[in-house]
Amino acid sequence: MGETITHKLKAFSLAQILEMESRFRAQFINSLGGFKSVCLVGTQNKSGLSNLAIFNSVMHIGSHPPLMGLLFRPDVVERHTLENILETHFYTINHLNETIYKQAHQTAARYNRTISEFDATGLTRFYKSDFFAPFVKESTIQIGLEFKEKTVIKSNQTILLIGEVKQVTLPKKCIKEDGFLDLELAKTITCSGLDSYHNTKIIDRLSYAKPDKLSTSIL
Amino acid sequence: MGETITHKLKAFSLAQILEMESRFRAQFINSLGGFKSVCLVGTQNKSGLSNLAIFNSVMHIGSHPPLMGLLFRPDVVERHTLENILETHFYTINHLNETIYKQAHQTAARYNRTISEFDATGLTRFYKSDFFAPFVKESTIQIGLEFKEKTVIKSNQTILLIGEVKQVTLPKKCIKEDGFLDLELAKTITCSGLDSYHNTKIIDRLSYAKPDKLSTSIL
Repeated sequence: MGETITHKLKAFSLAQILEMESRFRAQFINSLGGFKSVCLVGTQNKSGLSNLAIFNSVMHIGSHPPLMGLLFRPDVVERHTLENILETHFYTINHLNETIYKQAHQTAARYNRTISEFDATGLTRFYKSDFFAPFVKESTIQIGLEFKEKTVIKSNQTILLIGEVKQVTLPKKCIKEDGFLDLELAKTITCSGLDSYHNTKIIDRLSYAKPDKLSTSIL
Repeated sequence: MGETITHKLKAFSLAQILEMESRFRAQFINSLGGFKSVCLVGTQNKSGLSNLAIFNSVMHIGSHPPLMGLLFRPDVVERHTLENILETHFYTINHLNETIYKQAHQTAARYNRTISEFDATGLTRFYKSDFFAPFVKESTIQIGLEFKEKTVIKSNQTILLIGEVKQVTLPKKCIKEDGFLDLELAKTITCSGLDSYHNTKIIDRLSYAKPDKLSTSIL
């Protein structure tokens, strides 16, 4: 927080945000919430055609039962991932790492419905015997989910899907004694805005916060 | 993706996840979704008592109108932030940086309702003339929001609040030509799991993905 960064602040009102050119505003507001999870979502339709799409809207919903959310833009254009999940109820969430972020980004292109993004990008479909949807072989952390709930956000018609975690595969050494996952060891990356990818470096882990004493490092 | 990381994988079924000790499972599942945004949410009740709380559940909902989501655990214990937002409709989201993450983490302690976490942690309340809720002076990126919508996730009774961005203050030099915000220049940090804080280092920004050609760096 040096003065060098903060002494020239700029303020924007809602009116000024609404006046921004639309792509500028999309970049601006998509950046505003901070760093985000970025994952590949794998699905397959009933005809056996697989689909793979990058999402930066994966969110933790709860741990008991283990639930994750995924936000979709309004259903105005073809959304193959959304259609497949609603049709088959199964999907996978696969973490990005630095080796595959370019291919992962490329899955956002509007490929024709008959083209699998696995084939188009060269990422490897990987099926597990007991799970309908394909995983990404190059992903270090792979999660299989079952659709539970669909909610439409009234304010802008985005669609929030809630899924239950049915299975997880990850490197054994990423699991710490207390259940914490060392995502840096798994080479998981993060994103910001619409198109920016970042590595991380841990600062600290802090103990459970209590009113009567300051949290300390538990690294 | 060295073989050294991936050759010892461990798989977990839902049944195995449900059998985990509850704090272990909370760490495990909270880590599973990847890196997350971590912010301080500032509120004030009608009596003028301010509240400050750390959240790792801020999410982008849409850019036109500019909307952000905030997820709350089920309403079984006192949730001062949630109560204040529903009572007054205004709140602030303030980015964390490395200078204040310890104080920010400390706001998670269960302070008595009559104690403001600003006072308890030493973070500085900052009011803007036209906005009801307090901002965090030490935060480099400050966002003022108005409550729009409350949705209860049926699967686990968590509460999703949607707010509209009413004003934003940030360092001018963080704003790039295309609207992208350089969060690293703002010193914004990210988090994983329940208690882990991380700096980031940009890998790349990639051009808009199109089916007929591979995305290239736009850094």
